[in-house]
Amino acid sequence: MLTRTALDQLDRDDPLAPFRGRFALPPGVVYLDGNSLGPLPRATPGRVAEVVAREWGEGLIRSWNDAGWIDLAARVADSIARLVGAAPGSVAVADSTSVNLFKLLGAALTLRPGRCVVVSERDNFPTDLYVAQGMAAFLGGEHRVRLAEPGAAIDATGDDAAVVMLSHVNYRTGAMHDMAAVTRAAQERGALVLWDLAHSAGAVPVDLSAADADFAVGCGYKFLNGGPGAPAFLYAAPRLHAGLRFPITGWLGHAAPFAFKTEYRAASGLAQAVVGTPPILSLAALEVGISLALEAPLSDVRAKSARQVALLAALIEQAAPGIFRRVTPDDPARHGSQLCLSHPDAYAIMQALIDRGVIGDFRAPDILRFGITPLTLSYADLWDAAATLGAVMAEGAWRDPRFAVRGAVT
Amino acid sequence: MLTRTALDQLDRDDPLAPFRGRFALPPGVVYLDGNSLGPLPRATPGRVAEVVAREWGEGLIRSWNDAGWIDLAARVADSIARLVGAAPGSVAVADSTSVNLFKLLGAALTLRPGRCVVVSERDNFPTDLYVAQGMAAFLGGEHRVRLAEPGAAIDATGDDAAVVMLSHVNYRTGAMHDMAAVTRAAQERGALVLWDLAHSAGAVPVDLSAADADFAVGCGYKFLNGGPGAPAFLYAAPRLHAGLRFPITGWLGHAAPFAFKTEYRAASGLAQAVVGTPPILSLAALEVGISLALEAPLSDVRAKSARQVALLAALIEQAAPGIFRRVTPDDPARHGSQLCLSHPDAYAIMQALIDRGVIGDFRAPDILRFGITPLTLSYADLWDAAATLGAVMAEGAWRDPRFAVRGAVT
Repeated sequence: MLTRTALDQLDRDDPLAPFRGRFALPPGVVYLDGNSLGPLPRATPGRVAEVVAREWGEGLIRSWNDAGWIDLAARVADSIARLVGAAPGSVAVADSTSVNLFKLLGAALTLRPGRCVVVSERDNFPTDLYVAQGMAAFLGGEHRVRLAEPGAAIDATGDDAAVVMLSHVNYRTGAMHDMAAVTRAAQERGALVLWDLAHSAGAVPVDLSAADADFAVGCGYKFLNGGPGAPAFLYAAPRLHAGLRFPITGWLGHAAPFAFKTEYRAASGLAQAVVGTPPILSLAALEVGISLALEAPLSDVRAKSARQVALLAALIEQAAPGIFRRVTPDDPARHGSQLCLSHPDAYAIMQALIDRGVIGDFRAPDILRFGITPLTLSYADLWDAAATLGAVMAEGAWRDPRFAVRGAVT
Repeated sequence: MLTRTALDQLDRDDPLAPFRGRFALPPGVVYLDGNSLGPLPRATPGRVAEVVAREWGEGLIRSWNDAGWIDLAARVADSIARLVGAAPGSVAVADSTSVNLFKLLGAALTLRPGRCVVVSERDNFPTDLYVAQGMAAFLGGEHRVRLAEPGAAIDATGDDAAVVMLSHVNYRTGAMHDMAAVTRAAQERGALVLWDLAHSAGAVPVDLSAADADFAVGCGYKFLNGGPGAPAFLYAAPRLHAGLRFPITGWLGHAAPFAFKTEYRAASGLAQAVVGTPPILSLAALEVGISLALEAPLSDVRAKSARQVALLAALIEQAAPGIFRRVTPDDPARHGSQLCLSHPDAYAIMQALIDRGVIGDFRAPDILRFGITPLTLSYADLWDAAATLGAVMAEGAWRDPRFAVRGAVT
C-alpha cells in the first residue's frame, strides 16, 4: 500500500526537486502533458521580451550580427548535440520535425540508389508516415512505404529498403526501441536508419554516436521545453557528411550565404540542412529550454522517470483497481517517459480529469496518456493525479455529456 | 532645388503619418532596411508576452483549443490573402519562403508531367535558385533549371518548361515585373508561374487573382513586419486546388490531423500546405504585423512609396552629385519600394552610413540598397539620409579601415 507520506519523502530526497521552481506552473494543476508541450521555463518570458524589444526593436537588422542571430541556430544545435550523444557539427536546428524528416528521407534515398522503399511501423507517429508517403508519391516509380507491425520493421527490411524510419519511443504506447540493436540489424541489411527522437530527446539517455545511428530528427517543444511549435532538429552521422545531398537546399545552408552567388554550394556538415531564415523569437525560447535541460544530469532524469512511471501505474491501480489496461511496457529498459493506459471511454475520462486540473492527453482510439517530466513533476503530483482519477471513476464524473464533445485538438 | 522645408510640408500632408507612432523606432536612426527586417510594431511586445506567459505558461497544452493556436496560421493566412488579392482559403502560412518554394515547385512539376525545366532569371534571389537546383538534382533525369538574363525568362520558356519562377520585385535592383503580362505569356507557353512576393507583398499592390497567377510565395519579416525569421506564406490559385499534390505532406495538412490515421489524406485547399506544428510565438508576432499592414490603404502606401523613391534619388543626387549610378528603374510602374544605387565602394560606404545611424544595406557586389517603408518613413528622414550620405562622401569617411571589415551578415 503506497501512502502520500512515502511520496512526500521521495520528494524530499529528490536531487531534481529544485528544477521545479525554474518553471512557471499554474497553481492547481498537475501537468502530465509535458511530452506534448513542455511547460514554460521562468527565464523564457524575460529572454523573449529582450529579443523582441531590444534586439529586434532597437537593434533592428544589425542584430543579425550584433546580437548573434546568425549563429543562434547553430549554437542551439550544438547544445542539442550534447543531449543526444552527437558530435559537434552533426546536428542542425531548423524547420519542423516533419520537414526535417523529408530532408533526411531524401538524403537517404540519394545515398542508396536503386533502393526505393522506406520501411516503418504501422503505429509510428502519423506525420512520419505521411512525410514518407508524400515523398514516395512525389518520386513515383518504385518508391513506396512499407509498414510493418510494431517490432517487425527489421523483418520487413529487404534489399529494396533504403531506410528504416522508426520512433525511438512510441508516442501512443511509450514503448522504446533498442536503438543500437535495431540500427545494427538494419545496417546489416544495407539500409540506413532514421530515428525520430520526439519522445526521447531530453527524457531518456540517447547516444546516437554509440548506437552508430545514421540519421535522427527531434522536436523542440516536448521534453526540451522550447514552447509551442519550437523549431525542430536533425542529425546525420559525421561519416555520412561528405556524401550528403538534401532535397531542399536554401540560402542559409549555402557555404557563403551572403555572397549571393547563382549556384548552390553546400555548407559543410549539417549546416547545409538549414534552409531558410530561422524564426528568431521561437529559437530564443528554445535556447532557454535546452539550457535548462542540459543542467540536469540525464542519469538522474532517467532514474526518476522510470520510478515515476512505475509509481503512477501502481497508484492508479490502487485508486481505481482493475479499470485500466496498461499499454506501456513494464520493463523500464523498454519504455520512455510516459505511462499509457487504455479504456474504451478514454476520451471522456481524460476530459473529466483535465476539468479537475490533472492534464494528460488522449490519443485515439482509446489511450489515456500521462507524460512524465522529471524536472517539473513531484512524487506528490502522482498521488494527486491518481487520487483524482480514482474519484472521477468512482463518481462516474466522466459521463457528464460535456466531456463527450471533442475540441479541435484532442 | 529640394529643401528641408518642402519635405516637412509633405510630412504634414501625409495621410500615412500617424502610422509611424505605431512602431517602436530607436532614436537617432533613419531606418531604410524595412525591406530586409521590418521594424517592431508597438503592439508586438505585449502580444508576444501574453502568448508566452498566459497562453503557454498558464494555458499549457489547453491553449491549442482555448487560445485558438490551432487556427492561428489559417487566420493569419486569410489576412495575407486580403493583402495580395487572393481568395480565402488559397493562402497558407507555414515554414520559410524557401521551403514553400520547394513545395510549390514540386506541385508544379507534378501538374506538368513530361515538362522537366524550371525557368528563372539569373538575378533572381539566390535561395529561389538554390531551391530549384536542389529539386532538380534530387529528381535527376531531365530535371534542370534554366536561367535567363533579366527580363528574358519568357523567351526561355519552351515546351519543356513546367514552371516559370520569378520575383515580382527584384531584391537587388528593385525592378518590378508586370505580373499579369508575364503570367499570361508563360501560361500561353503551357507553363505555370510561381511569383516570389518577398519584396512586394505589403509594399506594392499585388492582385494574384486579377493576374490569374498560379502560385506565389512571400515573406513575413520584410514589409509585413512579422519579426526576424517570421513564418512565410504560399498561394495556389483555387482553380488548381483539386489537382494539387505537394511533395511534403505532414500531419497538420491532413484532412483530420487528430484522427492519427496511418494513411495521408490531404486537407482541402491550401490547408494541405501546412506540414508541421507552427511556431506559435513567431506566428503571434506576425499576426500583429499583418494587422497593421491591413489598416493602411495600399493605394496610399504605393503613392507614398513611389514618391519617396523618386525623392530619395533626387536628394542623394543633390547632396552627392554624380557619384552614384541608379540601378532601380525610373518608372514607378517598373519598380518596387526600394532605391538601389551602385558604387565600387558600396560596402564601406554603407558601413559608414550605418555608423551614423542611417541604416540601409549592401548587396554584392556593389549595391547600396535603401528600402522604402511608407508606414514608418517620413519625408524628413529622406532628407537626413541624403544629407548624411553627402557628408560621408564629402569627408571620405567611408575610407576608415574599420568599415572594410565584413560581418557575418552583410
